[in-house]
Amino acid sequence: MEDLSIDTQTVRQILVKFIQEQVSQAGYTRAVVNLSGGLDSALACTLAAEALGAQNVLAIRLPYRSSAPDSLAHAQLVIDALGVKALTYEITEMVEPLFTRFPDMSPVRRGNVMARTRMIVLYDQSAAFGGLPVGTGNKTEGLLGYTTLYGDAACAFNPLGDLYKTQVRQLGRALGIPEPILQKPPSADLWIGQTDEGELGFTYAEVDQLLHLLVDRQLAPAECVQAGFDERFVQAVLERMRNNQFKRMLPPIANISSEG
Amino acid sequence: MEDLSIDTQTVRQILVKFIQEQVSQAGYTRAVVNLSGGLDSALACTLAAEALGAQNVLAIRLPYRSSAPDSLAHAQLVIDALGVKALTYEITEMVEPLFTRFPDMSPVRRGNVMARTRMIVLYDQSAAFGGLPVGTGNKTEGLLGYTTLYGDAACAFNPLGDLYKTQVRQLGRALGIPEPILQKPPSADLWIGQTDEGELGFTYAEVDQLLHLLVDRQLAPAECVQAGFDERFVQAVLERMRNNQFKRMLPPIANISSEG
Repeated sequence: MEDLSIDTQTVRQILVKFIQEQVSQAGYTRAVVNLSGGLDSALACTLAAEALGAQNVLAIRLPYRSSAPDSLAHAQLVIDALGVKALTYEITEMVEPLFTRFPDMSPVRRGNVMARTRMIVLYDQSAAFGGLPVGTGNKTEGLLGYTTLYGDAACAFNPLGDLYKTQVRQLGRALGIPEPILQKPPSADLWIGQTDEGELGFTYAEVDQLLHLLVDRQLAPAECVQAGFDERFVQAVLERMRNNQFKRMLPPIANISSEG
Repeated sequence: MEDLSIDTQTVRQILVKFIQEQVSQAGYTRAVVNLSGGLDSALACTLAAEALGAQNVLAIRLPYRSSAPDSLAHAQLVIDALGVKALTYEITEMVEPLFTRFPDMSPVRRGNVMARTRMIVLYDQSAAFGGLPVGTGNKTEGLLGYTTLYGDAACAFNPLGDLYKTQVRQLGRALGIPEPILQKPPSADLWIGQTDEGELGFTYAEVDQLLHLLVDRQLAPAECVQAGFDERFVQAVLERMRNNQFKRMLPPIANISSEG
């Protein structure tokens, strides 16, 4: 077992400064956050409020009809604790027409439509409020590609993108994220009963350890197996990283200037 | 005046090969294109059909209630000429709920909501058809940032991104894009009467010349003025490029690993 624990006070300072720099470099003073009710966005919102002042942060709740009722309540705990501005809009009326037009849409397709619709409202309210959209993605989901491209992955800058999910939890605990949010199983809440770990087929505690060996310590897959990881698990994670690599890249452009 | 003309036969071959490589490298055989009725998407669709075969290309028409009726008809000319598969879905019912919720939304905000909603349908149909979304952006609008981030700029790969708009027109003519599409003024068709050149405040013929000097030939602004360009025009274009540079970058991630 590698020790992935972080010095929460140092990391907190780095992230607050990062948010301040990103926002001021872009000529802004404000930020908007899609507050889902989950841990990542609660932490991103907390850091943004510390960096910019609560009155300069707009937390946006974007439930769908079938979203867990707890999600709204948990987001409200964060809004109340921080004193940030808040806005709620139910995306159901935007997504249902497409679901009706394509009734055989799979849960994954529906989830992607919802995540991208939330991006639309987040970016529109970014324009209305004059604030930059803060990313809420963590390192684990970034490496695994467990995100919707142009959906929840869309942001102006990403404070949590270099923290594994287990580190996000540690930092969230240190920063006083409300207990019910720290306790509940991570979920994209895109369909009823969805949990990240159920969908991925492994726990964050396991995969963060493996990703640390593969990515930070640059170990070969065989070395990870020697270190005690199941070979099928290592292969499954590597395949996921490969298949989703395109989400961490800009679209390639055909090169004409130097050839045509 | 610089000569921006291209060898259309060579460029055509490069782009067809680029599309074939991008699609096969990703493990696909098919593509989807948002066919707006304008020149760029008509050309991208034509190249995709040549590269992959017409039966492997799905052209998607995504009109809004106020879209120019000509746009649908012009897209149909392309569909008929190429024999690609086609699908039409009016996005009005997806965007109106948000317009109703925020009735003071500016035309630009409404345009961004529409462009992003088209992205949602394009990516959903990408999943349904099993085809990669082909980009339709050109070099001029890319450099000027005259695009909607996560909207029309969203794609798996971009065949036209290194061609100025005037070069897209030249290639379109050589490839037999229907005459009404070549003749009409370029427009994002996001509101009635919108034209690119009216909104930008200059013509593509002018700005392509200037961008070529600034970007390809790396001339200083003062040298562009010496070459005959109005100083305010040069400054306006440079400011546009600077202000929209973020659209051509991935969101920055706070770096913890090496510091925390």
